Amino acid sequence: MRVLILGGDGYLGWPTPMHFSARGDEVTVVDNFAKRRWEMEEGIEPLLPIPTLHRRIALWKEATGRTIDLTVGDLCNERLVYKMLEAIQPEAIVHYAEQPSAPYSMQSRGNAVYTQTNNVVGNLNLLFAMRRHCPDAHLVKLGTMGEYGTPNIDVEEGYIEITHNGRTDRLPFPKQPGSFYHLSKVHDSHNIAFACRIWKLAATDLNQGVVYGIETPQTALHADLRTSFHYDHVFGTVLNRFLVQAAVGVPLTVYGRGGQTRGFLNVKDTLQCVDLAVRNPAKPGEFRVFNQFTEQFTVTDLAARVQAAGARARLDVKVQHLPNPRIEMESHYYNAKHSKLQELGLQPHLLTDAVLDDMLTAVRANAARVDKGAFEPKISWAQETPALART
Amino acid sequence: MRVLILGGDGYLGWPTPMHFSARGDEVTVVDNFAKRRWEMEEGIEPLLPIPTLHRRIALWKEATGRTIDLTVGDLCNERLVYKMLEAIQPEAIVHYAEQPSAPYSMQSRGNAVYTQTNNVVGNLNLLFAMRRHCPDAHLVKLGTMGEYGTPNIDVEEGYIEITHNGRTDRLPFPKQPGSFYHLSKVHDSHNIAFACRIWKLAATDLNQGVVYGIETPQTALHADLRTSFHYDHVFGTVLNRFLVQAAVGVPLTVYGRGGQTRGFLNVKDTLQCVDLAVRNPAKPGEFRVFNQFTEQFTVTDLAARVQAAGARARLDVKVQHLPNPRIEMESHYYNAKHSKLQELGLQPHLLTDAVLDDMLTAVRANAARVDKGAFEPKISWAQETPALART
Repeated sequence: MRVLILGGDGYLGWPTPMHFSARGDEVTVVDNFAKRRWEMEEGIEPLLPIPTLHRRIALWKEATGRTIDLTVGDLCNERLVYKMLEAIQPEAIVHYAEQPSAPYSMQSRGNAVYTQTNNVVGNLNLLFAMRRHCPDAHLVKLGTMGEYGTPNIDVEEGYIEITHNGRTDRLPFPKQPGSFYHLSKVHDSHNIAFACRIWKLAATDLNQGVVYGIETPQTALHADLRTSFHYDHVFGTVLNRFLVQAAVGVPLTVYGRGGQTRGFLNVKDTLQCVDLAVRNPAKPGEFRVFNQFTEQFTVTDLAARVQAAGARARLDVKVQHLPNPRIEMESHYYNAKHSKLQELGLQPHLLTDAVLDDMLTAVRANAARVDKGAFEPKISWAQETPALART
Repeated sequence: MRVLILGGDGYLGWPTPMHFSARGDEVTVVDNFAKRRWEMEEGIEPLLPIPTLHRRIALWKEATGRTIDLTVGDLCNERLVYKMLEAIQPEAIVHYAEQPSAPYSMQSRGNAVYTQTNNVVGNLNLLFAMRRHCPDAHLVKLGTMGEYGTPNIDVEEGYIEITHNGRTDRLPFPKQPGSFYHLSKVHDSHNIAFACRIWKLAATDLNQGVVYGIETPQTALHADLRTSFHYDHVFGTVLNRFLVQAAVGVPLTVYGRGGQTRGFLNVKDTLQCVDLAVRNPAKPGEFRVFNQFTEQFTVTDLAARVQAAGARARLDVKVQHLPNPRIEMESHYYNAKHSKLQELGLQPHLLTDAVLDDMLTAVRANAARVDKGAFEPKISWAQETPALART
C-alpha cells in the first residue's frame, strides 16, 4: 500500500513511517522541519538530540533493508502538495504536519495567526490536491480530543443524534476548543467534512487524546532511531513532563486544582490506531471521526501514579499546584466515548505500573540532560506574553 | 457613541456609517477596497457606478453637515488594527470587512485559501487588538445563517440545549456550512467565542440571512450616496438578481428544484438590527448570537413573487431551472428561530408587493446598464473552474 506521511520528523510522525515500512508498505514522509525552528524560538530541546530525518531514514535502511522516501517541503507550498500527490498517488495520507502546541499558539497574536494559517492552509492545500490528483485516497487526519472541550454531556465520536422540538438529526458534535491551536483543528475538521460532502473524498479524523511514551517497536531497534521526547512547558505532554520532573527531583507541576480530566494513550497505540484507520478506510464521501485514546485520567490521578512510581524507585516525588496558566475547568464532568477503534481491533497498552516504571527508568538514565528551567509554564491564556518573535 | 465600522465601502458597509452618523454617533469607517478588486477579477460591476468612499463621505458632509472619518487599510495588517483601536477607542465595532461571496470562495484553491485567510486573520487581528487597546468595546460581527446549513431540526440562535444520556448542557449549535466562505464565518465564530471566554470580550454574532433592497433612508438623500447593488452570479443575492432579470426580460435563474429555504431581510432591517445590537451590547465575556432575518422563503416562492410583480408591471417574466452549481439540499425542512432581535425592538420591513414593485421600478430605470452575461452561474461546487488568478 502506498502511504504518505505528512510531518514525519515529529514525536508521532517519525514512528509512523517506520511502522508502515516494517509492515511492507511503500512509505513516503514529508517534513519542512518547522517544529525544530519552533523549539529554537522557545529555547527548548527534546530530552535527547534527534538525528536529522535524512540520517534516520538511512539508518532505517541499514537496520531493516527497507526504504522510506523523503520529501522536504511545506504543505503551505501548494505546488509541492499537488506535484507530490500527482507523483506518488498515495492510497492513504496520514496528516500530522501541523503546529501541535496549545501554549505555542497562545503566546502572541502572531503565534495564533501563524498556527491557524499554517494548519488550515496546509490542510486546505491537501484537500484541493487530493481532489485533483488522488480523489480515491483516504485522508487520515490527526485531530484532538481538545476540540470538544469539556461539555456537561457525554462526548460522542464526532456526531451526536439530537432530538429537538420533536424532530431528530445526526449532527456534528458541538465544539468548545480551549486554545487557538485547538481551534485550528476545529477549523480543519469543518473544512474536511465539507470536502468529503461535496467532492466525495474519504477521511478519518482521529481525535486523539494526550500521548505518552518513549518507545515503539521500531524506535527500539537502534538508539538513533528514537523519536523526540519533550518534557517542557510548550511541547511536553503532561505525563511525559511529570516523569522527567520525578526523575530529576523537582515537584510535579499540576496546573490549578488538577481535576482536569482527559483521555490518554500510549504512543504505541497511536501507531495501532493509525494503522487500523488506514487498513479500514472511510468510504467515498464519508467523514468519519474516531476518538483515539484508551483511558481517562485526571491530572491529579496522574501525579499520584507518578509519585507512586517514584516511591517504588526510592525517589521522593512532590506535587506542586501552580496557578493555572490556562483558562479551563479544573473540576468537571467528563465521559468521552472511544469504542470505534476498539471495534476495529485496537488492543490497548494501558498505563500499568510497569509502563510507568519503565518510562521512569529510561528518563532517569538521561537525567543529566534535563533542563530544569523548561518546566515552568511561561505562557498565559489570560495575560499577554512579552514575545517579540511573532508579535 | 464612538462606532468603528469595518468594511465601510460595501453593500451593507456604506449605509451603516451613514445610519450611525445620522443618529449623532462619532463614526469611523475602514476599508481596503478589496471588494472592488474582486469585482475586477470577475469582470463584474454593480448596477450603477459607485463613487469613491472618499467622495461619498465628502458628499455626506455636504448633505448633512456630519463627519464620517475614514481610514484606508487592511485588517490583515495588524499594525493598522492595533494603532486604529488605540487611537479611536471605539465603544462599538461593526465588522463587515470580509470576503462575502460563496461562489468567489469556491472558484479555486487559491480563492478558498484567500477567503479563509483574509477573513480569519483579519478577525483574529481585531480580537487581539481589542484585548490590548479596548477590551470593553462591543464587537458586532456579521456572520451568516449559512453557518448552520439545513439541519432536520429547528435552528436556534447560536446555542442549543442538549439532553443526552440523562445529562443536559447548553452548547454551540452544530454547524454544517455550505462553502469555503461560509466555513470562514464558522471559523470566526469559534475564534470569537473563545476570545470572549478567555479575555472577557463582549461580542454579538449576527447570523444574517440573505439581504435584498436598494435604498435606505440615508442613501435616498442623494443619488451619489447610493450603495453598491449586485445582480451577478458571484456577488448578487437571489432576490436582487431575480428583479434585475425580470427588468431586462431574461428568465429568473432558479438553481435546481428551487426548494431551498432561507431567511431573508430588507437592507433597511440590517441597519435596524445592527443598531439594536450596538445600543444593547453584550456583557463582558458574553458571546451572543442573533439570527438576523425577518421572513423565510423558498427560492421558488421568490421567483413566483417576482413573476407576479412583473405581471403587475406588464412584464412577461419566465422562470428557468438551471442545473444547480452548488451542492445543497433542494428540498428540506427549515425552521430557524429569529426572535431575539424582535425582542429588542426590531420592526420588520416585510417583503410586500409594494416593496417588490418599488424595487422593480428602480431597477427598470437602469435596465440599459445591465450586463446580461453576468447572470449565468459559472462557478461550480463540484467541478474545478479554470480560474488562473488564484490557482
